[in-house]
Amino acid sequence: MTSLDHLADRQEILDLLATYCRGVDRLDLDLVRSVYADAGVDHHTGFDGTADEYVAWLARALPLLDGTRHVLGTHWCEVRGDVAAAETYGTATHWGTPASEPALNFTTGFRYVDHLVRERGRWRIAERWAVREWARSDAEDRLPVPTSGPRGDRGPDDPMTQLLARL
Amino acid sequence: MTSLDHLADRQEILDLLATYCRGVDRLDLDLVRSVYADAGVDHHTGFDGTADEYVAWLARALPLLDGTRHVLGTHWCEVRGDVAAAETYGTATHWGTPASEPALNFTTGFRYVDHLVRERGRWRIAERWAVREWARSDAEDRLPVPTSGPRGDRGPDDPMTQLLARL
Amino acid sequence: MTSLDHLADRQEILDLLATYCRGVDRLDLDLVRSVYADAGVDHHTGFDGTADEYVAWLARALPLLDGTRHVLGTHWCEVRGDVAAAETYGTATHWGTPASEPALNFTTGFRYVDHLVRERGRWRIAERWAVREWARSDAEDRLPVPTSGPRGDRGPDDPMTQLLARL
Repeated sequence: MTSLDHLADRQEILDLLATYCRGVDRLDLDLVRSVYADAGVDHHTGFDGTADEYVAWLARALPLLDGTRHVLGTHWCEVRGDVAAAETYGTATHWGTPASEPALNFTTGFRYVDHLVRERGRWRIAERWAVREWARSDAEDRLPVPTSGPRGDRGPDDPMTQLLARL
Repeated sequence: MTSLDHLADRQEILDLLATYCRGVDRLDLDLVRSVYADAGVDHHTGFDGTADEYVAWLARALPLLDGTRHVLGTHWCEVRGDVAAAETYGTATHWGTPASEPALNFTTGFRYVDHLVRERGRWRIAERWAVREWARSDAEDRLPVPTSGPRGDRGPDDPMTQLLARL
Repeated sequence: MTSLDHLADRQEILDLLATYCRGVDRLDLDLVRSVYADAGVDHHTGFDGTADEYVAWLARALPLLDGTRHVLGTHWCEVRGDVAAAETYGTATHWGTPASEPALNFTTGFRYVDHLVRERGRWRIAERWAVREWARSDAEDRLPVPTSGPRGDRGPDDPMTQLLARL
């Protein structure tokens, strides 16, 4: 029978993975840093190094794009005491100006393979392998996003950021 | 330590969000209405008003399409007593006839930003901002769906609707 | 109030669905077989038969592709004692050589409709309807995956397989 402790670990790990996405997509790099262990390491396409170096790399790379969306899906996780291994499928959409530029407008399919540790009572990523498996250009097919309706923002004007402030 | 109450809230909120998708995609508008609070409000691209008005708008808009799929992904939720804020990434595919028509065949990437409340013991959406972030035409690339194999239906012939009736 | 038993059932069923994806995508057909009940049945586009026959069919079909990704999303599940019905949205990407061949490079949108049973204390799929709803060719838009950075593998060299072995 699955225990409450196990379910709590699973939820906390899922929340950590979502926090990473929120950090990258809202350009909140302190939030990104917070999901890694103190001595965290990240292996990405185009990057390999410590969590501190990764955040510095993101600080240079992300502003070249108008926005990103890191959509997580299938998630599988094995918890063993204070360590865990998780495999989480994701699809990331990147968009930029001009919309016809393939290097700025593309979708990637990947799996995050995460070695997680409980550090000071909280789950964190000790080591991540971002396994890119597939990529597609969106340059030919991008449609304009209407200017009416709720709009996202990487900064304090984002509707979620505003809702959290009001809650 | 995460409590059972918190885990139950999180599961109930996730189920509510899935119920919304099922309602829209199966054209079950009573189900859609049921996920909003009595005084629920929705802000969408092309719509802004009460939950009642939103459902009336869907009743006109959805039949113009042959079908929709609202696929949820990354989910982040902060519960504070009887209110909560949730951010849920989604990708929606819309298809229609003819398959070559971009206005009927497109995919959108969005985040649902939801202000949730516990109303009569059940979580409901008090206010939703559907933040559209990205869109792509599928008109050039649609492939026909084979006529053999299990087929979906917006009405009572859908395999899930039939399975639920038998369970 | 949602009980611990219900939450445990829900987590176990989600894990089962993720295990299926991992089995197909890593070409681990024993793992695929393990998610079905002894007398399991599967209805797919292009296949209809027992779980044993389905695994034999996958053993012939999957090696024709270079890889697959089965990304699950919206999940809805009703548990009634030792049986359950689940509807799980998914998006599957298939890729092959040459990248320009539409029959090997396409994305499908589907819902898994699952009749689940508790068999020898563990949830399993008694009957699955894989309802294909939408498909798109990726042949025109495939981008090459860089050779640097973490790479996936269907066999023992996959980063997740290696992490699990070390844990």
